[in-house]
Amino acid sequence: MPKVTFLPAGVSVEIAPEETIIRAAMKAGVHINASCGGAGVCGKCRVFVEEGEVSGEPLPEGGYKACTLFPKTDVVIRVPVESEVDRRALLRPAKKVATSWVEARGAAEFPLNPAARKHFVTLEPPSLENNMPDFPRLEMALLAELGAPKLDLDWQVLRDLPYALREKDFSVTALVLEDGLPCLLAVEAGDKRSRHFAVAFDIGTTTLCAQLIDLSKGEVLAETSDYNPQISYGEDVISRIEYARREGGLRTLQHKVLESLAKLTRELCEKEGISPEEISFYSAAGNTVMSHFLLALEPRFLREAPYVPVTTRFPYVPAEELDLPGGRKARLFLAPCVASYVGGDIVSGVVAAGIAREEPLTLFIDIGTNGEIVVGNRDFLACAACSAGPAFEGGGIKHGMRATLGAIEAVHIDPATLEPMILTIGNKKPKGICGSGIISLLANLFLEGIIDQSGKYRRDLDHPRVREGRDGWEYVLVWGKESATGEDIVFTEADIDNLIRAKGAMFAGYQTLLESVGLEIGMVERVILAGNFGSFLDLEQAITIGLLPDLPRERFFFIGNASLLGARLAATSLEAIREMEKVADMMTHFELSAHPGYMDYYVSALFLPHTNIDLFPTVKEILASRES
Amino acid sequence: MPKVTFLPAGVSVEIAPEETIIRAAMKAGVHINASCGGAGVCGKCRVFVEEGEVSGEPLPEGGYKACTLFPKTDVVIRVPVESEVDRRALLRPAKKVATSWVEARGAAEFPLNPAARKHFVTLEPPSLENNMPDFPRLEMALLAELGAPKLDLDWQVLRDLPYALREKDFSVTALVLEDGLPCLLAVEAGDKRSRHFAVAFDIGTTTLCAQLIDLSKGEVLAETSDYNPQISYGEDVISRIEYARREGGLRTLQHKVLESLAKLTRELCEKEGISPEEISFYSAAGNTVMSHFLLALEPRFLREAPYVPVTTRFPYVPAEELDLPGGRKARLFLAPCVASYVGGDIVSGVVAAGIAREEPLTLFIDIGTNGEIVVGNRDFLACAACSAGPAFEGGGIKHGMRATLGAIEAVHIDPATLEPMILTIGNKKPKGICGSGIISLLANLFLEGIIDQSGKYRRDLDHPRVREGRDGWEYVLVWGKESATGEDIVFTEADIDNLIRAKGAMFAGYQTLLESVGLEIGMVERVILAGNFGSFLDLEQAITIGLLPDLPRERFFFIGNASLLGARLAATSLEAIREMEKVADMMTHFELSAHPGYMDYYVSALFLPHTNIDLFPTVKEILASRES
Repeated sequence: MPKVTFLPAGVSVEIAPEETIIRAAMKAGVHINASCGGAGVCGKCRVFVEEGEVSGEPLPEGGYKACTLFPKTDVVIRVPVESEVDRRALLRPAKKVATSWVEARGAAEFPLNPAARKHFVTLEPPSLENNMPDFPRLEMALLAELGAPKLDLDWQVLRDLPYALREKDFSVTALVLEDGLPCLLAVEAGDKRSRHFAVAFDIGTTTLCAQLIDLSKGEVLAETSDYNPQISYGEDVISRIEYARREGGLRTLQHKVLESLAKLTRELCEKEGISPEEISFYSAAGNTVMSHFLLALEPRFLREAPYVPVTTRFPYVPAEELDLPGGRKARLFLAPCVASYVGGDIVSGVVAAGIAREEPLTLFIDIGTNGEIVVGNRDFLACAACSAGPAFEGGGIKHGMRATLGAIEAVHIDPATLEPMILTIGNKKPKGICGSGIISLLANLFLEGIIDQSGKYRRDLDHPRVREGRDGWEYVLVWGKESATGEDIVFTEADIDNLIRAKGAMFAGYQTLLESVGLEIGMVERVILAGNFGSFLDLEQAITIGLLPDLPRERFFFIGNASLLGARLAATSLEAIREMEKVADMMTHFELSAHPGYMDYYVSALFLPHTNIDLFPTVKEILASRES
Repeated sequence: MPKVTFLPAGVSVEIAPEETIIRAAMKAGVHINASCGGAGVCGKCRVFVEEGEVSGEPLPEGGYKACTLFPKTDVVIRVPVESEVDRRALLRPAKKVATSWVEARGAAEFPLNPAARKHFVTLEPPSLENNMPDFPRLEMALLAELGAPKLDLDWQVLRDLPYALREKDFSVTALVLEDGLPCLLAVEAGDKRSRHFAVAFDIGTTTLCAQLIDLSKGEVLAETSDYNPQISYGEDVISRIEYARREGGLRTLQHKVLESLAKLTRELCEKEGISPEEISFYSAAGNTVMSHFLLALEPRFLREAPYVPVTTRFPYVPAEELDLPGGRKARLFLAPCVASYVGGDIVSGVVAAGIAREEPLTLFIDIGTNGEIVVGNRDFLACAACSAGPAFEGGGIKHGMRATLGAIEAVHIDPATLEPMILTIGNKKPKGICGSGIISLLANLFLEGIIDQSGKYRRDLDHPRVREGRDGWEYVLVWGKESATGEDIVFTEADIDNLIRAKGAMFAGYQTLLESVGLEIGMVERVILAGNFGSFLDLEQAITIGLLPDLPRERFFFIGNASLLGARLAATSLEAIREMEKVADMMTHFELSAHPGYMDYYVSALFLPHTNIDLFPTVKEILASRES
């Protein structure tokens, strides 16, 4: 990876060759004026190349636009500095991301031992001396191979069996589901062990992710994702549960998500030149509501006290009955859930991170719509849902949006000019702000003193970007002339209020959950961040606003889509399925709102970073240094 | 039952009030001229009532037509005798039928313990203190009730579960299949234990029989039957296997029989005011080919050496997948088979007769198309198929027909006049001759010396009924003017030849099978006759023609449709299912044609009653007395 050194700051970062210099600057904490999101249209991001080779568009007046400039070798880039204030802006600390858990530690290790296995057996052809029927003939060979005393079967296997046996002289491949009493699901002529595929799904409220897996090797062949089409029937789980009460509503929700999962499966198969009928297993993880929708189980009692799921353990379901490719031989495994608001996605994530197999006390955080948290180690697991709401996914934020093309994903505010530098996903003209951009913006506004600790704009700033708009006080992040919509992209006090409540709910959650098990935040040895944030989240910023606890930075890891990772492990290893069951059983669910201290913790957390600043010593230090 | 005494013979029989005097005469072995089958049209059957009350049609010339005369009390009937020869005819022994096995012994006893059971449980409703999900809540209660460590389930149960639980305050009835790991199949609100029904089927090549069973009491509620509609695609199994080779042929055969079974089920339910959806279990028994057709399993290897079934044990199949009423909760049990030509009907019959649970050496005979025989007791079971062909079902017989309305079911030939007395099913004008009529006719022709021991008509008789017809020599049983078709109903030498070959195959089968296990006919302590014959078969006549061995008459029993009886037992008792499996395992199948002595036995049996007359001492005696 080319190294990019910025002058006059003298800081360096490594970036991928397909990343732009402006992205390198954002990573390095170097401010460059850029208001078009990297789309190459505002022309404010002029830089000079002092050393190394680049590819880019030279400006007539000299230099290059940083947003369309790529390093070909290690390079030294000079950022024009017009004032001492600009120089000070350059000295901001580099963006700090958590370490990748998977890169650092690998996913939890499980042997390659899929629940659905293929066995190749060669039988003695029948003769007048041995005219045992077809099925017991195969059964005997399989029982010997499996070392099992009994074999169950899907009766329809008997329909294909005589043909499959006779096609290749009584050499066949048997697909056997080996969880509990082994069950014969399909028989193919010849040796088909290498054609053995599974699909793993993470069924998110917002996003569906899918991976195609070669079960013969345990390798991921391809990955894809799409929105959860249930979004059309409600952004969050509550509104979808409401929709499900209508006539046929539940079935519609089920069909919509199944249609998408089937489409993703076909897409993956096409990409890899595999027939969708070759899929022999599905493994899925989702929250409790998504799991109910997937099987069309009545969800309404999930949200009515006493919050009772239909079930938290799911039997294997034939793909055929879910209209997924692969027929009735392909069974779907669905990760077990813990309670109404702590689902299989969390269980799956905890298994992927291997939390229940190790000693260190770990805090597992999924900052999604619900904000699920888990604390524990090999001895215990406690979990809770924070009901943080979707603010960190852009929900309930005036110009919030999901992390798609044109979303502002990173923000830097020049401390001197209070002008923003923004980066958008795909370097498109900005449309709105997504989660990581929102955290970044909130932290910048707070650190530059544009808002105070209660999240209110300073009324005395007299800056064109800080103004009283239609919805109250706001900061103009992008002027209409530079946005994709033609409208100003703003960040209101109401938005900030939502965010403070969301992060307050999370933080109060950590405190309450830890207190419930007799521990406190400082004792946490590892924090694992799950979800899409991970690699985009600036750790310092998230701590600055009080979303994450102020712990030594090396204790933080991001694991990405841990739910999908766990689902993949469940597809490739029966031991991972057993671990999920163990984790779901071990996990004690705490209903935060039932805890007497919770409301106090929550109210105390409605401040930036917190009413009790001593909980955030590093933020306290920064604030002190700013004021001095 | 009224007693009917015939004069001058002085013999009495008891008959049901709905039976006619002519039927009583046939039973008593009293010859009355009657050529219209009891239809009341020929007017030849005049009798006089000497004592008792009757209902009937008085003839203008005095007396009554016996074929429309019913006894209201015990009666004494005088048959007009016009000659000494007539008087001798009256002295024929009364018809001897085998004892009813079920009446004498009862069906084999199994406890009322259906594989599909209903359990009523009342659960504690969920609360914030105990918000266990619905399924584990029910599961815990059921496991306690079942005394089982684990419960499987059909995932679709989860769809109805929350509604069923809440409808009657968490009191529900669970349908559990308890063969192996218990499997929850359905949940209903409230106590539904008394609404628990099964249907038992005997799937014959020709006839389908069905019984509706109340599983809560183990009682038969109703019974019905119909032809097997597969007949349109082939009278026998071989031609249907051929048909199955056509494109879609196997599916057609499957659909046809399933359609009929569904129709019979609906018919039974309607009769008893039960919704077909209340059926919770099906139990079926059929020969190996019928069992293959039922599940659309490839049948062709059943008839190609080395004669390999796809399977002889069948997994439970959801009724839904067979388009039978009752949905996916109702599982179908199919009796295990032994080999290609010894099927679940025989296994079912052997279980119904309890052969494998008792000491006496028993010969079980099913004179159907194949003519299956079993010999054994609690220590061993050996079986064989005799390939006797359908002659005793009317197949391959010029005027042969199935036992339906208008079929001649009993024949008596006046030894003096050689004129026949016939009875038809339903007292209709005669259409043809069914199995029992055929045996009756053959025995009469032989005993009256109209045919010789090789089955040829005496060429010197000079009787209008014995003539050389278009198909060779024949006996005219019914003149065209008295038959339903207007054509003469005849019995040809070719017919007799077919019958001799069929009974020869059976008898050679008994001998070969017994020899294979080191026994001989005289050692047989019980002969159980299965199939439709049973109550209609005249034991003496069947022995006379050499179809049954000449053993003391008290050793003979008829059991009727033992296959259906066994299927019913399997529906009501898991122990009967276990017994079927045991019997199928115990049963050693002998391929008669592979036995070196079989052909000799067969050829020796192609004689009336047998080339070795010493095997039939009582027949020898009768023949000797006739000749003297």
